[in-house]
Amino acid sequence: MSEVIDVVGIGNAIVDVLAHCDDAFIKRLGLTKGAMTLIDTARAEELYAAMGPAIEISGGCAANTTVGVASLGGKAAFIGKVGNDQLGGIFRHDVRAAGVHYDIAPATSTTPTARSMILVTPDAERTMNTYLGACHELTPADIDPHLIQRAKVTYMEGYLWDPPLAKEAFLKAARIAHEAGQEVALSLSDSFCVNRYLKEFQDLVKNHVDILFANIGEITALWETNDWHEAARITQQHCDLAALTRSELGSVIVTPDEMIEIPAWPVDRIVDLTGAGDLYASGFLYGYTHGRDFETCGRIASLAAGEIISHIGARPETPLAELVLSRLV
Amino acid sequence: MSEVIDVVGIGNAIVDVLAHCDDAFIKRLGLTKGAMTLIDTARAEELYAAMGPAIEISGGCAANTTVGVASLGGKAAFIGKVGNDQLGGIFRHDVRAAGVHYDIAPATSTTPTARSMILVTPDAERTMNTYLGACHELTPADIDPHLIQRAKVTYMEGYLWDPPLAKEAFLKAARIAHEAGQEVALSLSDSFCVNRYLKEFQDLVKNHVDILFANIGEITALWETNDWHEAARITQQHCDLAALTRSELGSVIVTPDEMIEIPAWPVDRIVDLTGAGDLYASGFLYGYTHGRDFETCGRIASLAAGEIISHIGARPETPLAELVLSRLV
Repeated sequence: MSEVIDVVGIGNAIVDVLAHCDDAFIKRLGLTKGAMTLIDTARAEELYAAMGPAIEISGGCAANTTVGVASLGGKAAFIGKVGNDQLGGIFRHDVRAAGVHYDIAPATSTTPTARSMILVTPDAERTMNTYLGACHELTPADIDPHLIQRAKVTYMEGYLWDPPLAKEAFLKAARIAHEAGQEVALSLSDSFCVNRYLKEFQDLVKNHVDILFANIGEITALWETNDWHEAARITQQHCDLAALTRSELGSVIVTPDEMIEIPAWPVDRIVDLTGAGDLYASGFLYGYTHGRDFETCGRIASLAAGEIISHIGARPETPLAELVLSRLV
Repeated sequence: MSEVIDVVGIGNAIVDVLAHCDDAFIKRLGLTKGAMTLIDTARAEELYAAMGPAIEISGGCAANTTVGVASLGGKAAFIGKVGNDQLGGIFRHDVRAAGVHYDIAPATSTTPTARSMILVTPDAERTMNTYLGACHELTPADIDPHLIQRAKVTYMEGYLWDPPLAKEAFLKAARIAHEAGQEVALSLSDSFCVNRYLKEFQDLVKNHVDILFANIGEITALWETNDWHEAARITQQHCDLAALTRSELGSVIVTPDEMIEIPAWPVDRIVDLTGAGDLYASGFLYGYTHGRDFETCGRIASLAAGEIISHIGARPETPLAELVLSRLV
């Protein structure tokens, strides 16, 4: 692979294990509704034994975003670490079959591939419980400078701050990208994740990131305010470009000069919110790397997010390029 | 578990790997559309590499049927062999989480759990390509006489004839069931499977089976005729009870005295035919083991089949007992 890449994503390589449950289950198991909670092996076994029949769909935030970019017709690559096991094989197959370049070697240890047990409640909210497993083995050595240099945007998920060496990989990639004159994008991932690494994330956003993605909970956590409008104004002071999502209220694209409101894409029935932010980022970055104006980037982003929340799982069921053709052009 | 069981199912323990494809893919890969084809490791790798992003959902014909019985509120148990691996753990979790009793030890070898690569074309037809793996290690020793004796119906899939020792397990279970005064049901599974074991299946149906399930292709293959009506008449001569399914034409319940026509359940959009026959059997056997008349058994069967073809995968998305309450009572 030597041509130009639109987006290279770096993130945790995760297989999602999705099941429906009611709110009583969330309460009984002591889960934090709507959040991503890290769990260890024992808790993973406890939760899995308690939850209902599930289905497995490849996931991982940055991986979902790169699959979305490929589904829109863009060139995408992914960097993340699976285990040397069946779930790792499933993850690898799915991301490659989606057209994303992926050649990171699996972990050499026996640590299993990461999985996220995702409980979807009747209100379509998803509660994620993630066992990181082999993701802990992503290191700076997995960052191929040649790949990063060729990517217009290097996109990373905030969750990378959880496995310690992955953070180093992230920083190495950001440095290489900037030295090559390319841009670095970051998704804040989750408000609890922001709170875990608050000062580091503030420094990162102010000094190392060109394009920021965040939802309401994440951006208000980042700037330590309860007021979304204030958070948006602070973002405007510190970022060249940010896309702030607000669920059914749509999103706002923030630049130093303007705030552009983008409506949410109307969806008949919201089934599962898993991947909404990831696919929003796909749409935005696809438009951005193809030279579209910010409003068009936002509309593609909304459409991609709308597709993903209309079914279970965080990988598109309909080729997004077809949707763009039929709905936006 | 010591109470009475409605249905114990014996079958291949399989995780389905489902992906959409077009008819050109079926042709290019030389697949037999609509059939179940057995594949070896090399072919499995070739197919997996060629197919698009997939999702994993536990499957296996008899396992699907027992899950359906449990979803209807019945007591069900399953006998089948998984490998000692991640996919085996997924299969075990899903069947148990559905409320089905399952305590068969995994294979002691390193042979992996069976998987079926299922390609779903735009017409909702499914083309199955099954690597049997650990299913080959089901033996008569896995048949617990105490479990079979307590089951009103011992249900087996014709596919059990493929792994050699599983057939012996099947025959052992049938003998135990009959000695305990219980009944034996068989699904013919697939017309190609019927053709592989024609004489044995004819003997089985004539002499060892109390309740027969078959679709048009299977029953005409069994009696070596192209005429469905003739096949139904021959069935009437040899079987005490049979349910013959005819896709959108509905089904016919055949006894020595009558043929009862049951309409197909109307479905808004048929998404994936995987599991239609398995869930038809769930509904029929749930009604039958709860003393309902044949027409009611058939209507529950049609409803269960209708639910399963309205979404991807062969495990119910909606609790079937709720559907019966809201649609049939």
